[in-house]
Amino acid sequence: MVIGGGFGGLNAAKILANKPSILVTLIDRRNYHLFQPLLYQVATAGLSPADIATPIRGIFSRAPNIHVRLADVHGLNLSAKKIKANGHEISYNYLILACGAKHSYFGHAEWEEASPGLKTLEQATEIRRRILLAYEQAEKEADTRSKMELLTFIIVGGGPTGVELAGAIGEIARYTLERDFREVHPNQSRVILIEAGGRILPSFSAKLSARAVLDLGRLGVEVRTNSRVTNVTSSGVWLGDEFLAARTVIWAAGVQPSSLNAQLGAACDSSGRVIVSKDLSLPQHRDVYVIGDQAHLELTPGQALPGLAPVAIQQGRHAARNILRQIAGRQTEPFQYVNKGQMATIGRRRAVLQAGPVQFDGFLAWMTWLIVHIYYLIGFRNRIMVMLDWAWSYLTFQKGARLIMADDWHSYRRKS
Amino acid sequence: MVIGGGFGGLNAAKILANKPSILVTLIDRRNYHLFQPLLYQVATAGLSPADIATPIRGIFSRAPNIHVRLADVHGLNLSAKKIKANGHEISYNYLILACGAKHSYFGHAEWEEASPGLKTLEQATEIRRRILLAYEQAEKEADTRSKMELLTFIIVGGGPTGVELAGAIGEIARYTLERDFREVHPNQSRVILIEAGGRILPSFSAKLSARAVLDLGRLGVEVRTNSRVTNVTSSGVWLGDEFLAARTVIWAAGVQPSSLNAQLGAACDSSGRVIVSKDLSLPQHRDVYVIGDQAHLELTPGQALPGLAPVAIQQGRHAARNILRQIAGRQTEPFQYVNKGQMATIGRRRAVLQAGPVQFDGFLAWMTWLIVHIYYLIGFRNRIMVMLDWAWSYLTFQKGARLIMADDWHSYRRKS
Repeated sequence: MVIGGGFGGLNAAKILANKPSILVTLIDRRNYHLFQPLLYQVATAGLSPADIATPIRGIFSRAPNIHVRLADVHGLNLSAKKIKANGHEISYNYLILACGAKHSYFGHAEWEEASPGLKTLEQATEIRRRILLAYEQAEKEADTRSKMELLTFIIVGGGPTGVELAGAIGEIARYTLERDFREVHPNQSRVILIEAGGRILPSFSAKLSARAVLDLGRLGVEVRTNSRVTNVTSSGVWLGDEFLAARTVIWAAGVQPSSLNAQLGAACDSSGRVIVSKDLSLPQHRDVYVIGDQAHLELTPGQALPGLAPVAIQQGRHAARNILRQIAGRQTEPFQYVNKGQMATIGRRRAVLQAGPVQFDGFLAWMTWLIVHIYYLIGFRNRIMVMLDWAWSYLTFQKGARLIMADDWHSYRRKS
Repeated sequence: MVIGGGFGGLNAAKILANKPSILVTLIDRRNYHLFQPLLYQVATAGLSPADIATPIRGIFSRAPNIHVRLADVHGLNLSAKKIKANGHEISYNYLILACGAKHSYFGHAEWEEASPGLKTLEQATEIRRRILLAYEQAEKEADTRSKMELLTFIIVGGGPTGVELAGAIGEIARYTLERDFREVHPNQSRVILIEAGGRILPSFSAKLSARAVLDLGRLGVEVRTNSRVTNVTSSGVWLGDEFLAARTVIWAAGVQPSSLNAQLGAACDSSGRVIVSKDLSLPQHRDVYVIGDQAHLELTPGQALPGLAPVAIQQGRHAARNILRQIAGRQTEPFQYVNKGQMATIGRRRAVLQAGPVQFDGFLAWMTWLIVHIYYLIGFRNRIMVMLDWAWSYLTFQKGARLIMADDWHSYRRKS
């Protein structure tokens, strides 16, 4: 049984697909697999939700041994080998937990309303709505100060997601919306990227961090490092004594793993990830594997594997293969990570890329980023659609999915 | 000033675009123009919202005399030549009202929760969510009766929208989802189209009505004519003494025009549409034009023009040209409707088409429908995307936009 249809769970199920005499139940709360690395493009109106999401059933329609279930798993009983989903108990022989992570507000859940995170499609369309609505309101606003506040966008967190969001919003402010809004001048807009640590993209080299700051600067993004957010309200962000007025704040700082971890009875690291054995199973339960953002594994002592898609993908495959080994009565093997490098894109023609000793930036890095992401997008159809959406955006500076939809269907239904 | 960015208002503004010394304010509650005739494709997971919606600002970005405003018009004062939008009063010289219509539940507003209409993108994605969720729940349901209720889809209203929805849902039930749901058999699913009148598609010839019933039957759709809905609940539909159990009900019966009509002080017809002069202006206010679904005009006595896109488009252009005539000190001209015919598609390779004495059906009608709709979809980008989406669906029987998104972004945000 596999819980979670993200990169980890999906790739585990793919290894097990069409294996004779193995029955797999794949459970997810959503009916689709989400290509998380491009979620920021939905939030910034470059892509539509359906471009980066694929129905899980469709992926496994030719694998009769994979049973897909739409359900919310809320209970685990590892000694009885049972899980609880939507109130029903289901037994398993082997279990792969790949439930991922959600945003962490460091104990300040009340900040969420004013600064949504970017983990789900709903959050992405909500952020898109807020950005576009801010422009619409700024266009009508006569008061200069209110106008500036409407045109200030703050992104908290200088990791890849924060950098990519800031770049895309900087570009929207600079180019995309310039012609459409007559009462808004690009220089009235501010995009501020806030990072608590000493530099953005801390997992990249210092050289690439500096390069990213430069590239962001060209798109008008101000980068503030060593700045810790102390409060977020609907009117702006507090950094200690300093207040930055802004109507739109997006949270891209820190994640916490699935709350199911608390039910495992296993040791967790300081951020709540389960510490797994070298073969990805739980030390006390060799039939339970925990992978991806939910797990903590150190291949180099003191250095846990990062919460990236390639880690989850490789761990999903490895966990599935270890289960096949166990079924065949063989020994499991320790997980080894093939580091293919990491990338972050900055606006529509720059990126930073690091793969071991190799690092480069600029247009070539951006092209590489583009090819890799299109390649990994699941499904032939999505690849064509996304490529066309991008070609269109690139050639015209237009964003194709600039729709302000209501945040729920009730808001508009009774109006005429 | 033009109120409404639908087919009528948009085409009025296009005529006035780049006309020297004319300043146009185009007001809409939404930031996009919606291609309503294809909304049923979003509701049935064939297209994404962005495929059929275009930001209004983008359409007029090269027309500096058109000012686009996102606002809700809630007051009219025709004698003072003012409108009230978002609490502010705005003056006009000439006014075009093109606010369209919403669904009418014939005085039973309480039916809406159980049977959403199909006028907005939010409603379309809500209907998509309900259809796909019904399948997911049916897949898990052990009780045969509950399963049948989950797999019963009722569409109320046998006009073009109802027929197109029923055909698309019939096709989903027959082909698209067959392989993905292992515990659901196509013959467990029922799609029922309910029409109060004597035949479906009453605006078409009797021959084409009969043909549509036949084509729908091939897709497994049951057509019930002379059946008046007397109650709708979350468990089904009452037709007098008869109860049809169904978890998914969609409302496609009857519309009522914008509530602004009540403020015009003009005569209205029985369904609330304003009776306009032959030149589309109001009899008491020659500087106010009312067009599209909001207006009642009889070119043949006793026969009002129908609420169709071509009527709204032609009226929008005509009203704008009459205003240009008035500004030039010339006489306005009476509106004349060029009837290019009407079409309704049934599933993925049949349609009915009627243009004056010409009428045909089947695959040729469907091809014509396809070409006409792609041609009219605004924007080069949308045309390519929609064509690809359709080509994909046609070749593979897959639907590309099969996402169950939450009905508001809050539902999922605090879950892990």
